[in-house]
Amino acid sequence: MPNPEILFQTSPEQYKHWRMNTAGPVATLSMDVQEDETLADGYKLKLNSYDLGVDIELADAVQRIRFEHPEVRVVVVTSVKPRIFCAGANIYMLGSSSHAFKVNFCKFTNETRCAIEDDSHHSGRRYIAALNGTASGGGYELAIACDEIYLVDDGNSAVSLPEVPLLGVLPGTGGLTRLVDKRKVRRDRADVFSTLAEGLKGKRAKEWGLIDGYFPTSKFQESIDARVKHLVNNAPAAEQGIKLTPLEFETTDDSRDYKYVKVKLNREQRYADLTVLAPADPQPTTAGQIQELGAAYWPLQAYRELDDALLHLRVNEPLIGLVCLRTEGDAETILEIDKTLAANHDHWLVREIILYMARVLRRLDLTAKSFFAVVEPGSCFAGNLLELLLASDRSYMLKDSEEGDASLAVSELNQGAFLMSNGLTRMQSRFLAEPEKLDEVFGDQKTFNTEEAEELGLITFAPDDLDWEDEIRVAIEERTSLSPDALTGMEASLRFAGPETMDTKIYGRLTAWQNWIFQRPNAVGPEGALTNYGKPTQAHFDYKRT
Amino acid sequence: MPNPEILFQTSPEQYKHWRMNTAGPVATLSMDVQEDETLADGYKLKLNSYDLGVDIELADAVQRIRFEHPEVRVVVVTSVKPRIFCAGANIYMLGSSSHAFKVNFCKFTNETRCAIEDDSHHSGRRYIAALNGTASGGGYELAIACDEIYLVDDGNSAVSLPEVPLLGVLPGTGGLTRLVDKRKVRRDRADVFSTLAEGLKGKRAKEWGLIDGYFPTSKFQESIDARVKHLVNNAPAAEQGIKLTPLEFETTDDSRDYKYVKVKLNREQRYADLTVLAPADPQPTTAGQIQELGAAYWPLQAYRELDDALLHLRVNEPLIGLVCLRTEGDAETILEIDKTLAANHDHWLVREIILYMARVLRRLDLTAKSFFAVVEPGSCFAGNLLELLLASDRSYMLKDSEEGDASLAVSELNQGAFLMSNGLTRMQSRFLAEPEKLDEVFGDQKTFNTEEAEELGLITFAPDDLDWEDEIRVAIEERTSLSPDALTGMEASLRFAGPETMDTKIYGRLTAWQNWIFQRPNAVGPEGALTNYGKPTQAHFDYKRT
Repeated sequence: MPNPEILFQTSPEQYKHWRMNTAGPVATLSMDVQEDETLADGYKLKLNSYDLGVDIELADAVQRIRFEHPEVRVVVVTSVKPRIFCAGANIYMLGSSSHAFKVNFCKFTNETRCAIEDDSHHSGRRYIAALNGTASGGGYELAIACDEIYLVDDGNSAVSLPEVPLLGVLPGTGGLTRLVDKRKVRRDRADVFSTLAEGLKGKRAKEWGLIDGYFPTSKFQESIDARVKHLVNNAPAAEQGIKLTPLEFETTDDSRDYKYVKVKLNREQRYADLTVLAPADPQPTTAGQIQELGAAYWPLQAYRELDDALLHLRVNEPLIGLVCLRTEGDAETILEIDKTLAANHDHWLVREIILYMARVLRRLDLTAKSFFAVVEPGSCFAGNLLELLLASDRSYMLKDSEEGDASLAVSELNQGAFLMSNGLTRMQSRFLAEPEKLDEVFGDQKTFNTEEAEELGLITFAPDDLDWEDEIRVAIEERTSLSPDALTGMEASLRFAGPETMDTKIYGRLTAWQNWIFQRPNAVGPEGALTNYGKPTQAHFDYKRT
Repeated sequence: MPNPEILFQTSPEQYKHWRMNTAGPVATLSMDVQEDETLADGYKLKLNSYDLGVDIELADAVQRIRFEHPEVRVVVVTSVKPRIFCAGANIYMLGSSSHAFKVNFCKFTNETRCAIEDDSHHSGRRYIAALNGTASGGGYELAIACDEIYLVDDGNSAVSLPEVPLLGVLPGTGGLTRLVDKRKVRRDRADVFSTLAEGLKGKRAKEWGLIDGYFPTSKFQESIDARVKHLVNNAPAAEQGIKLTPLEFETTDDSRDYKYVKVKLNREQRYADLTVLAPADPQPTTAGQIQELGAAYWPLQAYRELDDALLHLRVNEPLIGLVCLRTEGDAETILEIDKTLAANHDHWLVREIILYMARVLRRLDLTAKSFFAVVEPGSCFAGNLLELLLASDRSYMLKDSEEGDASLAVSELNQGAFLMSNGLTRMQSRFLAEPEKLDEVFGDQKTFNTEEAEELGLITFAPDDLDWEDEIRVAIEERTSLSPDALTGMEASLRFAGPETMDTKIYGRLTAWQNWIFQRPNAVGPEGALTNYGKPTQAHFDYKRT
């Protein structure tokens, strides 16, 4: 499967599968998947089923609503196909994809659904799933990521999770977890529902808590409209959005350079250097100036570039197992930016920018590659960029350099603006054993040289000039020589100490089980259910329980 | 691998690999693994490495300390082999085992370590890992399940988790989770430690929080003794234990009958009926009588039988995918027993019995088979046996039967005595969406007929006489026709809604990742690290990150 590079940038004018309409406080996202507009050959996207290309558009639409249409208070997610809402991830696409692609596909679709919930939770936009027809598998999982679910009662339309009974795999996009943890459906009912290929229709679906209401076909649209009207009645005054302009970058065989993010691929050694640059120009200090600058404002542009680079590395560069995170520029500039963000966090755009930075950092936490932070003189691991170091599996900071001292710096934003999926800050996560260290880190002193950072426990290793090159080289060589699968499992276990949330359950427990099942002969072997779906041949199971 | 049936019963006289000594308030469990006494052919248990047989003895020893030696306050876990504590799970055993066996092996060893922590947490026994030599892999994971870890400082001995760097798999027995969640080792240090084949010795191991202290060889024993003496100084008055007599059962090709637990295997249809019988004889009502009756007391004997039956089904009957849980006898008797247990819960033996019942029920929650509870007239799903129904994936209760009414009943013990791994009662778990239902369930009315149980939401389905046989038959047929792997992942996701704990992280997140890795070619393929360990051939990885 997909050899051509997958691009994660799109915009409404380019959408093939979604229609986005905004009318004052209401946006409507209508699914209208074009069968033949697939990311790869070998399948057709029938019945509003989707592949990664469809979900990239959805992620873009949700992102644009937040930045370009802050006036929107309610988002209606529906379909323009009669009697079909969405049939979920395309089964033939899954059947013909590599294991790694399936895993990355599910991770991205999960992140998109979590982004919907993030918008609902933090920015108060209400998402309404208006199921004008059957929502099966990933279709229902999209609905369950919304705040409210309404189903047409036409004697035929149902909600269902047919993955277990039909395909021998799990609903891969958080469905099982959201069923019992978000909608708190009783576990025996969840068990019945998740093994019932045909799903449940209006009345019983409502009774079991799978949907919030159902309306006959003739009254469906007006009922949705009434609900939407009710929700927008108390909407705050309209804000003016900004335009998310296309990201520009230059690529060669071994580099991908944006304005603020530079990626260098060391293919032979299977690692990448990813450097984030501080801005050289003066940055705005008021919300008005930020709004005027829009997408060119450093925090927004740099993190959009970082986001795109991470997605690119995940999907298009599977052989890169390690990313060395570096920063370059004036730490003071970064701290000033954080000060401006913190001072204006009540402004809608600043709030959206901070929330987006948090999402990008979570994308990093969830990326199945090792991260080493490399701190040298001239770097700027300060404030929001310090999170890159805290998100890394390890950090190396040069001590006693002839070029002057390296330093780290904290800002107010490190104290709660960028929560991990488990609800902790990365600093809390780091000092689980010694929470009193947080007082030291966030005390009067804001900047720490190598010795201080080492003493405080902010970094892993602090080699001096003499050892530096060798130590980094050996660390990289060692890391990239290890089994990539064992590293993925190890990192997923060590990165998320402490509490668990619905999100971490989805990315941890559920995803790991799904990944396991995605390798089992009963799913993907020649006689597996996924392999044989829709073919004249039948699945045959090895019934041994594991 | 293991064709001969694996027996989970043993006793100190039969131990091959452990020596158990008790002296007043101190027990010493010394590992002395016999290389040739393996559960299967093809490997030798060198360097105190272990297979399932070694762990069955450890589980038995911990259990016997709790019941037979309640006077013990401190348990020292050590080895009699010079300079070797334990080398962990035997790699050649793992390399030659089926995937299903590896998964079941890890699950059992995890349960044994959780049982150690359960004893420490609830019964206050302090476990001291006295590492007289190197503890690697599962050896260190055994140590980290103890309360305190002391390592000999002989210039050579180290603690290590070499699974990732040497074998391309994860430490499979909770090590990664306990590293960051129990000992709260900083995640970057945990990352370094878990990729360092040789591990860390005394000073640095202590500095990083991997151990609690280190002593030179010449002072090792006296330092451990001093620590033990300090801990037992304030031990409460000694109690007199009871004897855990061997369980007796009769087997045929399709049955396994204990006194109170009857298992009938319907091999053709790939399901088992497991029936728990209430006692017919009068049961003791005071702690003194319970102590006198000892292992023959119904709650202890019935749950020991249930435990053994579950382990047998897991490991020796992989083709049985579904267990129908049934009960038979007088519900009043069960409720009286619960009353006695609740009234005497402060007595050491009653406390141990209740804690053991809770562990057996957790073993059920964690068993990778589907469970249906089947409630008919004459059954006794009451009090502690009601937990069997609440632990099931679904329940079926006969309505309007000619044979009289079926009923369910609650007791005080359903309100907190039997916590799931996630820290909730099964009733809390059931009513996550409607916590107010708990007041109804635990109100004045204690017994509920089918209609009341259905109305309250205690059961899944309530077919009447006419539909009963057909509905159960069809449900069984449908369940056993589904992919066993998809069911395992689905059940693991639906059974544990709500909060997560270290235990659920170990059984959910960590185990699922390990199971995934245990299937990856980089571990178990012809060129995998596990396959090639110790051979002249070398592992070769596919370096694509997933």
